Amino acid sequence: MRTALAAVLYESGKPMVIEEVTVLPPQAGEVTVRMKAAGVCHSDLHVIKGDLPMTCPIILGHEGAGIVEEVGAGVTSVQPGDHVIPIWRASCGRCEYCLNGRPALCDMGTAMRFTGTMPDGQTRFRNGLGDSIRHYAGVSTFSSLSTMPEAAVVKIDADFPLWKAALIGCGVITGVGAVTYAARVMPGTTVAVYGCGGIGLNIIQGAKLVSASQIIAVDTKANKETWARQMGATHFVDASQGDPVQAVRDLTKGRGVDYAFEAVGLPQPIEQAYDSVRKGGTCVVSGICRADARAAINVNQLVYAEKTLKGTLYGSARPRIDLIHLIAMHRQGHLLLDELLTRTYPLEQINEAYESLERGEVARSLILWE
Amino acid sequence: MRTALAAVLYESGKPMVIEEVTVLPPQAGEVTVRMKAAGVCHSDLHVIKGDLPMTCPIILGHEGAGIVEEVGAGVTSVQPGDHVIPIWRASCGRCEYCLNGRPALCDMGTAMRFTGTMPDGQTRFRNGLGDSIRHYAGVSTFSSLSTMPEAAVVKIDADFPLWKAALIGCGVITGVGAVTYAARVMPGTTVAVYGCGGIGLNIIQGAKLVSASQIIAVDTKANKETWARQMGATHFVDASQGDPVQAVRDLTKGRGVDYAFEAVGLPQPIEQAYDSVRKGGTCVVSGICRADARAAINVNQLVYAEKTLKGTLYGSARPRIDLIHLIAMHRQGHLLLDELLTRTYPLEQINEAYESLERGEVARSLILWE
Repeated sequence: MRTALAAVLYESGKPMVIEEVTVLPPQAGEVTVRMKAAGVCHSDLHVIKGDLPMTCPIILGHEGAGIVEEVGAGVTSVQPGDHVIPIWRASCGRCEYCLNGRPALCDMGTAMRFTGTMPDGQTRFRNGLGDSIRHYAGVSTFSSLSTMPEAAVVKIDADFPLWKAALIGCGVITGVGAVTYAARVMPGTTVAVYGCGGIGLNIIQGAKLVSASQIIAVDTKANKETWARQMGATHFVDASQGDPVQAVRDLTKGRGVDYAFEAVGLPQPIEQAYDSVRKGGTCVVSGICRADARAAINVNQLVYAEKTLKGTLYGSARPRIDLIHLIAMHRQGHLLLDELLTRTYPLEQINEAYESLERGEVARSLILWE
Repeated sequence: MRTALAAVLYESGKPMVIEEVTVLPPQAGEVTVRMKAAGVCHSDLHVIKGDLPMTCPIILGHEGAGIVEEVGAGVTSVQPGDHVIPIWRASCGRCEYCLNGRPALCDMGTAMRFTGTMPDGQTRFRNGLGDSIRHYAGVSTFSSLSTMPEAAVVKIDADFPLWKAALIGCGVITGVGAVTYAARVMPGTTVAVYGCGGIGLNIIQGAKLVSASQIIAVDTKANKETWARQMGATHFVDASQGDPVQAVRDLTKGRGVDYAFEAVGLPQPIEQAYDSVRKGGTCVVSGICRADARAAINVNQLVYAEKTLKGTLYGSARPRIDLIHLIAMHRQGHLLLDELLTRTYPLEQINEAYESLERGEVARSLILWE
């Protein structure tokens, strides 16, 4: 029986509590990972604020990187000492989604996201009172040790810095993947990106990676312009200063863009992104909204202009393949990572980290363990 | 200078007027077609009722078939006597949409739809007072003679019945194409079809052609069931008797369908079709709505379930290729046509034909010239 220091959310709307928890050993097909880095991401913030309700107490954190501490019976793909990226939608490899190249939709991974338990319906965390604590997205990276399914870890090279691996594991694969796997943006085309946070900046980077000819970054906060241009934006639109749809049209000879991306998680920017797309174009949404949020989509644009509106989860990537590709791309100088990281915190300052994220002060921040 | 008998809409909300009109000769790159059959379709009804405003007077009718009467200078693909299907989005063959396999989005064809003129900005119809009468969708098939661009006609075999060609030219290619070209439905998958009119019945037929395992037809009118089953529906849901989304889920083990199609042209069935789609599925909309209609799309279903919502115009087909394929499919016994035709009328009864269509009494009706 191991103990760990974890950030426990006991009630949405309240700060997380830093406390020692018991981490139960890995069962058959599970592994325990010693976390070295964990990402501070908006998806967790939705749970903290209660926009996406989850049963509490729960240990949040869905992106990270670490080292395998212990493996359960039957585990074959990793062994203690291996460096891994936890993936926040475990993929069983056998359901129709996994077999169809869409592991982010895996039935097992989807179920874990909503139950907050391991596949056997139990949890592997206990607090000092012996109460069960839920897992988040199957990986709960805001704990120095976390037990998770083997199906939720991808082995990476031991010489690759784990803080960089943590960045790749969520924001980078989700943003770049939205461009390369979900939209399959063609070289030379035009792109607009609504929202320049952790995902949006990587959508911009993805559009640059595939040589889009025009990359228009849109945000309501003018301070995002520097980051957006650093990642590859060719234009910046401050949406607080006027209609961004008109601004996008003005920048594209009145036509609109071939592809628009939404990375905010609100109906209005989704509608604006959709309206920014030209005839025959595609709008890809990656932002997570309140569960009941609806976007009002003009129907005749859909039909007469044959627009496509699609959602993307986890960048529509196959993490077991694509995380490795992204690491290779960074090693070869194609993919920016260092530039994404604004700030790091110890786990004890996690509530401050989220307050800063909510104020839009950081591109990306990480919790680091030494 | 030729004269023709035509149905002229002088004002939306009023009946069309049957009168003799002058048809100006084809200019360079144009042809004059003697119409033999014309389809009675909902898209025209939207204009008649004023839901889709067009400048009047106008001669409606966008599907049909006929024989080339005269060709203008430079016309090379057809000659007098050739049998043709007019296509309601002329395709220039040179714009990026045509070159990209999406001729329904052709800039020239799109412009003609909205201007109601030939590409030179003029019309080729005059009434008895000498007033200019607009074209509809470039083809105005509700006239016994109609001048149109060469880019708007496809030559077909002379032995193929023109009334069948008229059916293929709009409802069949749009419905079947929504399945085969827009959604690219895979064999063995499940399909729901909202709306069993002229397009919906052909969506059902398209789903059968690609061997969908379950084809659930949905309509608010119970009398559509017989037609729907004849075209290939395996189930029928009467949407006037309860929530059709729940009915679709009940028929698919609670999961929803792989593909849902909307062929009504109202926000509610679009929302229902979208909600009927399972995780990872696709909703394709072919219905034309009022210009300002918006559908309210749940955003988290879009992202967490990676749903796709897309519009399709003209079945996302390439009419010059696919009309020929559809004729071959009918000749080989794969594609039903005779079963679609409920009633025929002479042009003089066109207003009655639209009243009957609006009451949902016909699957498909045609105006026929002897």
